[in-house]
Order: sequence, then structure tokens, then C-alpha cells
Amino acid sequence: MPMTHPKKGPCLAFVLACLFGSRAAAQNPAPMVRLAKIEVHAAQLHAYRAALIEEVEASVRLEPGVRTLYAVSEKDHPTRFTILEIYADSAAYRAHLQTPHFRKYKTGTEKMVKSLKLVAVEPLVPGMKIK
Amino acid sequence: MPMTHPKKGPCLAFVLACLFGSRAAAQNPAPMVRLAKIEVHAAQLHAYRAALIEEVEASVRLEPGVRTLYAVSEKDHPTRFTILEIYADSAAYRAHLQTPHFRKYKTGTEKMVKSLKLVAVEPLVPGMKIK
Repeated sequence: MPMTHPKKGPCLAFVLACLFGSRAAAQNPAPMVRLAKIEVHAAQLHAYRAALIEEVEASVRLEPGVRTLYAVSEKDHPTRFTILEIYADSAAYRAHLQTPHFRKYKTGTEKMVKSLKLVAVEPLVPGMKIK
Repeated sequence: MPMTHPKKGPCLAFVLACLFGSRAAAQNPAPMVRLAKIEVHAAQLHAYRAALIEEVEASVRLEPGVRTLYAVSEKDHPTRFTILEIYADSAAYRAHLQTPHFRKYKTGTEKMVKSLKLVAVEPLVPGMKIK
């Protein structure tokens, strides 16, 4: 009976995955993209806008893993905000949550926010920029 | 009776507006920013995605006034799309509507789209980019 190598296929696949799969993942991890939909109390609108502007500007300036926090308010309903959030990966997002500027924003605006909805999304063209 | 110049003030204001106001506007017109919220029929999802990708890539590549068309689909509801649309100004938007690639997309996807909502918005940080 000839010697068989029943595990050769899976082993080879495992080695290839180690060599190429994780390398590719390390070089180009999946970005984490999300839409944050926020409504604030009208009486706190001015203060909330100031806090949000400070937070997104600091995050993008100080954190290489925060690719954008593009915040908009609706013209017809200025208390409604949407933020397009793009992080290099989930580790960059977790690091963002620990930063002093994010924690200051989160604590400072807690009572201003009427509702918050976080929607996980996928970009159709991941390399898309703003010219 | 001394000669009066009752229209001196308004004239001066007009001249200053011509010199500085329109110059400032020409140099830095207000960008037009919008969220397009689209839901498509599930049976046409694959075809719609392909058409949208082709349209946004062509628009950003060919039109200097289209700063971005950042399209995302919801992970939990893949038939729901949001597009962050940024045009240099309203003239750039009107020109976009006349392009062959937009007209092809609009005509080709008309029956795929279940609902379309266009929400005029204002960016909190107009110079925000995607790194």
C-alpha cells in the first residue's frame, strides 16, 4: 500500500494562507465605514455643532487611521446630522474611541443628543476620495 | 443750494460688491452638498450596483466639478444606498446632469429604483477630505 498524504491539500492551503492571506490582510486591511445619524435637541444646536466640529477636525488631524469624518447637517432640519465615518480598520476605530478629543466630545454632548443611529455600510468604490 | 450726491452710498456699495463680492464668489463659490438615499428592487441589485459604480467612477474621473460621489450600501440592507454628493457649485451639478455617463445611469436604472430621496445638506467642515 503506497504511502498517502491525506492532509497535503489542507496543509498546503494553510501554508499559502499564512504566506499570502495574512500578508495581504496586513498590507490592506478592510476599512471600516459607517454612517452615524444623529439628532440633537434644538436648544443645544449651537453648542453641539461647535463640539462636533472640534472633534472631527482633531480626529482627522491627529489620527492617521481616521480617514475622514465628513459631517453634514440637513438644510431643512438643522438638528439632524449625518457623519460619513471612514477608519483604516477596526483597530483604528477602537483607538479613536480612547482618544482625549473623542472622549471629551462624547461626554460633553451626551445630553445634547436626542437620538443616535449607527449604520454599518460598505463603500462601492473603496478608493474614492474628495477632490 | 449745494450739489448733493444722494446715490453716492449705494453706488459705492455696488462698485465694492462688483470688485470684491463677485471676485470672492468666483474664486470660492459655495459647494453643493447632498445625500442621495436610494432603495432598489432586490432582483436588480447586482445590475444596479454595477451601473452605479460605473457612473460614480466616470463622474469623478471626467468632471472637475464633481468632487466626490461616495456611495455606500448598508450591510444589513444591501438594497439601500446612500451617496454623499459634493459638487464644486450648482453649475457643476447642472453640467453633471447633462453628461452621457449620468444620462446612461439615470435611464438604465430607472426601473431598478424603488425609492429616491434627495436631502440638501451643509458640511460642518467644508474643506474636509478623505485621507
